[in-house]
Amino acid sequence: MDLYTPEYFMNEALKEAKMAFEEGEIPVGAVMVCRNRVIARAYNQTEKLTDVTAHAEILAITAASDSLGAKYLTECELYVTLEPCVMCAGASFWAQLGGIHFAAFDPRRGYSNIKEGLLHPKTKISQGIMEAEAKQLLDSFFKQLRK
Amino acid sequence: MDLYTPEYFMNEALKEAKMAFEEGEIPVGAVMVCRNRVIARAYNQTEKLTDVTAHAEILAITAASDSLGAKYLTECELYVTLEPCVMCAGASFWAQLGGIHFAAFDPRRGYSNIKEGLLHPKTKISQGIMEAEAKQLLDSFFKQLRK
Repeated sequence: MDLYTPEYFMNEALKEAKMAFEEGEIPVGAVMVCRNRVIARAYNQTEKLTDVTAHAEILAITAASDSLGAKYLTECELYVTLEPCVMCAGASFWAQLGGIHFAAFDPRRGYSNIKEGLLHPKTKISQGIMEAEAKQLLDSFFKQLRK
Repeated sequence: MDLYTPEYFMNEALKEAKMAFEEGEIPVGAVMVCRNRVIARAYNQTEKLTDVTAHAEILAITAASDSLGAKYLTECELYVTLEPCVMCAGASFWAQLGGIHFAAFDPRRGYSNIKEGLLHPKTKISQGIMEAEAKQLLDSFFKQLRK
């Protein structure tokens, strides 16, 4: 039995998203996986760091490059609980990410709202792993925020 | 006579680009201006930091938010020597930048290659200030690199 399934890694990303939730951040989490090993973990910290660039994906890319000592992450796969925005898609392009797996769609700010290819041609995409869980966490956050 | 012209600020950005050049980085520099004051300076550090996200614009946005203690930079203008890429355009969207002034076009990786509006509707754009100087610096860098 393979422990290291996409669900396993997305669940790790969800754990990160839950940490964001607990800290009052929009709950998005990410892990970077290289050869079946999680080499970086991050969650959205835009409020804590007062920095719009502190999305989970950007922090995960920076941390993964630091861990590997390499700018290009062609053998890495990013698991992220929400569809990346344009900024993060652009970052993944520069990193030449091997793959991106995201859980929930972001119909307003997701990169796929832009018709043309923002991603690197080498970056494989999958969507929908643990989508319900990721979406539920986001919905709870915004419901609480609006109270 | 107004000292604080767009040329003045772009020249400050060019000074940053020259620092990048001297450190063997692709020479792109940026300054963030708020009410006629430079509140952040940065140059491309992707090689030094082994981090594709360390573009001058991203570093300038992070530093400006740090300086102001604010995530949104609606009263700030970014002067940058090269047209921002998709990642940086996306970051400027989240920051709701008041304006972006860039010197040289980036015909391959500039955000304006993407037809749809990547920028925040509030962000005013100008192009071409000191374009020749910025382009010449980039051309020298790549010429030297190919030797």
